[in-house]
Amino acid sequence: NLRQKVAEMNTADVAAILEEMEEEELLKVFRILPKSMAADVFSYLEVDHQQMIITSLSDKEAANIIDNLMADDATDLLEEMPANVVKKLLANASADTRRDINHLLRYPEDSAGSIMTVEYVDLKENMTVQDAINRIRQVGVDSETINICYVLDAKRTLVGTVALRYLLITPPDAVIGEMMHENVVFINTMMDQEEVARQFQKYDFTAMPVVDNENRLVGIITVDDIVDILQEEATEDIEKMAAIVPTDKPYMKTTVFETWKKRIPWLLLLMISATFTGSIITSFEDALSACVVLTAYIPMLMDTGGNAGGQASVTIIRGLSLNEIEFKDAFKVVWKEARVAVLCGLTLAAANFVKLLLFDRVTIAVAAVVCLTLVAAVFIAKIIGCLLPMLAKKIGFDPAVMASPFITTIVDALSLLIYFSIATAIMHI
Amino acid sequence: NLRQKVAEMNTADVAAILEEMEEEELLKVFRILPKSMAADVFSYLEVDHQQMIITSLSDKEAANIIDNLMADDATDLLEEMPANVVKKLLANASADTRRDINHLLRYPEDSAGSIMTVEYVDLKENMTVQDAINRIRQVGVDSETINICYVLDAKRTLVGTVALRYLLITPPDAVIGEMMHENVVFINTMMDQEEVARQFQKYDFTAMPVVDNENRLVGIITVDDIVDILQEEATEDIEKMAAIVPTDKPYMKTTVFETWKKRIPWLLLLMISATFTGSIITSFEDALSACVVLTAYIPMLMDTGGNAGGQASVTIIRGLSLNEIEFKDAFKVVWKEARVAVLCGLTLAAANFVKLLLFDRVTIAVAAVVCLTLVAAVFIAKIIGCLLPMLAKKIGFDPAVMASPFITTIVDALSLLIYFSIATAIMHI
Ligand SMILES: [Mg+2]
Ligand SMILES: [Mg+2]
Ligand SMILES: [Mg+2]
Ligand SMILES: [Mg+2]
Ligand SMILES: [Mg+2]
Ligand SMILES: [Mg+2]
Ligand SMILES: [Mg+2]
Ligand SMILES: [Mg+2]
Ligand SMILES: [Mg+2]
Ligand SMILES: [Mg+2]
Ligand SMILES: [Mg+2]
Ligand SMILES: [Mg+2]
Ligand SMILES: [Mg+2]
Repeated sequence: NLRQKVAEMNTADVAAILEEMEEEELLKVFRILPKSMAADVFSYLEVDHQQMIITSLSDKEAANIIDNLMADDATDLLEEMPANVVKKLLANASADTRRDINHLLRYPEDSAGSIMTVEYVDLKENMTVQDAINRIRQVGVDSETINICYVLDAKRTLVGTVALRYLLITPPDAVIGEMMHENVVFINTMMDQEEVARQFQKYDFTAMPVVDNENRLVGIITVDDIVDILQEEATEDIEKMAAIVPTDKPYMKTTVFETWKKRIPWLLLLMISATFTGSIITSFEDALSACVVLTAYIPMLMDTGGNAGGQASVTIIRGLSLNEIEFKDAFKVVWKEARVAVLCGLTLAAANFVKLLLFDRVTIAVAAVVCLTLVAAVFIAKIIGCLLPMLAKKIGFDPAVMASPFITTIVDALSLLIYFSIATAIMHI
Repeated sequence: NLRQKVAEMNTADVAAILEEMEEEELLKVFRILPKSMAADVFSYLEVDHQQMIITSLSDKEAANIIDNLMADDATDLLEEMPANVVKKLLANASADTRRDINHLLRYPEDSAGSIMTVEYVDLKENMTVQDAINRIRQVGVDSETINICYVLDAKRTLVGTVALRYLLITPPDAVIGEMMHENVVFINTMMDQEEVARQFQKYDFTAMPVVDNENRLVGIITVDDIVDILQEEATEDIEKMAAIVPTDKPYMKTTVFETWKKRIPWLLLLMISATFTGSIITSFEDALSACVVLTAYIPMLMDTGGNAGGQASVTIIRGLSLNEIEFKDAFKVVWKEARVAVLCGLTLAAANFVKLLLFDRVTIAVAAVVCLTLVAAVFIAKIIGCLLPMLAKKIGFDPAVMASPFITTIVDALSLLIYFSIATAIMHI
């Protein structure tokens, strides 16, 4: 029958099928899930479906789901629910669950504490391998991972780890304290989740222990959550680089009004900044009317400057966020960008010079003005493009906002200033 | 002494310290590493240091390192080396290593086959739990992971998996074929690595089996490599969105000439496209000289259009790459962007109208022309910004190139066309 068939399926697959259903059908199928599976499937659903299910279930059924979730997933859910619902859910949950969740709720957003969970296997130094295996049999079922077990002393200080694979190949009467790995890499509860992700990337672990300031083990972080965080952080950076205020919500779930609220602040700010560029044009009105053909190259100069600066800034922003570039590299970076800028500027100017004389048939003076401006604009754009993100990071701002839209606005104004200065100098207008 | 101290350190930490050293010092320290550690540390080094070490060692020492690397890491290294060095290294390596590497080298770049490795524990259905544990003791040390073991039939078809944690809690005389998990989620050798990463994200596994077209197990992929791939793919998308031809090399390791080669193609193409925008200005020269103040608002209109379109395109590109948006959502997306565009356009126009009349003190006619253009430009920008990435994906192009720089160029030209059309209509110039 259906129930049995579902029980044999992978929980993530069941969740994916549920996600495609209408609310009523989803609820009906969720209710017939085997008890052992329900919480697991639940943890793979998106948060809006989770909320819908929790509020449709009776208080006791809901508390039962919460009890069977891993503490990190339960905490993430409760953080999204109204305070009165949270209160009711916790009142009905078991004392253990209540304690774990109340503990996890205390950590600030995006800290290691906020992404850890508490279901791990803890061992003692004086246990034998057989004791350890017995302990795993007893608590392992409810743990996120048992592949690594954590050895604690009487004060719950983390003193070592034991990989399950070594338990398997060690005689049953060996003592944990003598076989454990003592040089443990751990994470502090207050470390930012981006830095946590970098630690996982560096060490290739599937789980890492989290300790408080007294080195007491308070939780573990598992790599499946790190995978999600890497995607979130990349999305956040991409949105910031595109002049969008980032959110966690996927596009298809945001309302029109929410999307507007994410996009309008930067659009307004950049629009107002762009009027400076306009006023530069106004102040050179006379020069422009003396040589109207110069107007035709304004868009090309502005766009090319913006693109050249955007390339540099985005490269540096990504390098900073991957820790491939640090502030101490600033001089090397600027020197490199300067040389790249000269190469790019000369290439573009050469191509343009040919086109200006052969196709547009402008005077050599006009061609010279346009091409010299091009070289200068690309140079300035690349230098500003690489400097601003590094300076932002240095003074504690997020470098990601120093991307194309922002750089473009600055470079536009500077390019026009250079354009008209060179024009007045060369053409005496 | 130093050697013993290093032996107790984490291999990734040792590698990080080596990375900071000068070539000679690095080589000296690498040579004193305990044998059991050398290959492991080696696998954490960056590819240029790996090459330097391999070419400095004797043929036999080098082959020894290759033999002790996981096959995926060895293959990645050999892919970067000159053909004659590869030949020599393989000639000196063991027959097993040679076979594994030659096998892995056959898969196309970015396929599941190219990122898998071959060090896994295989079991047979008729084994008992005790047999399985004995097998793990025997081959487990050389495996990437033993937390999941793979059950194969006589033709090496994948018929089930057994988690190490269940072996531990099952009686030693139980039969593997009866306790194994039969509903295995697997990956085909030809699946693209981005899709592989999405499978890991969906199922939260730490390793996944890879099978050929006859469902025979040919390798496993581990989550630590998926973490790296996620970062690479995000970087690739970010670079494409910034009009850069992507590479795998980190910024600090590319030469000036390589960086130029990555940036100049798009700069040239976009510069040439921008001349269309210029020719629109030229063709409306008369209108412009009749009302010179209009020129002052060209930069603001172009920038705002570009920013508005960039926001939409980048959001859609990221949604497509996270599989949050599919082509079947196209209508919903366009309808949403249209409404967001109207809201954004009206907000910007309102702010601008006040500024134009109060600060710039232009005529109502000019203010009307500018603000109407603003609304139209933002609308067109958002619609083009969301449509182009989806169309690109539909016809099999990478949506990531349809980002700000490309959209800006199109929107610039359209905005100016609208600007001058509205101006001639309203102001009769
Ligand atoms: Mg989970
Ligand atoms: Mg949380
Ligand atoms: Mg790694
Ligand atoms: Mg978790
Ligand atoms: Mg960030
Ligand atoms: Mg963050
Ligand atoms: Mg622009
Ligand atoms: Mg590795
Ligand atoms: Mg490979
Ligand atoms: Mg996941
Ligand atoms: Mg690997
Ligand atoms: Mg891609
Ligand atoms: Mg790819």
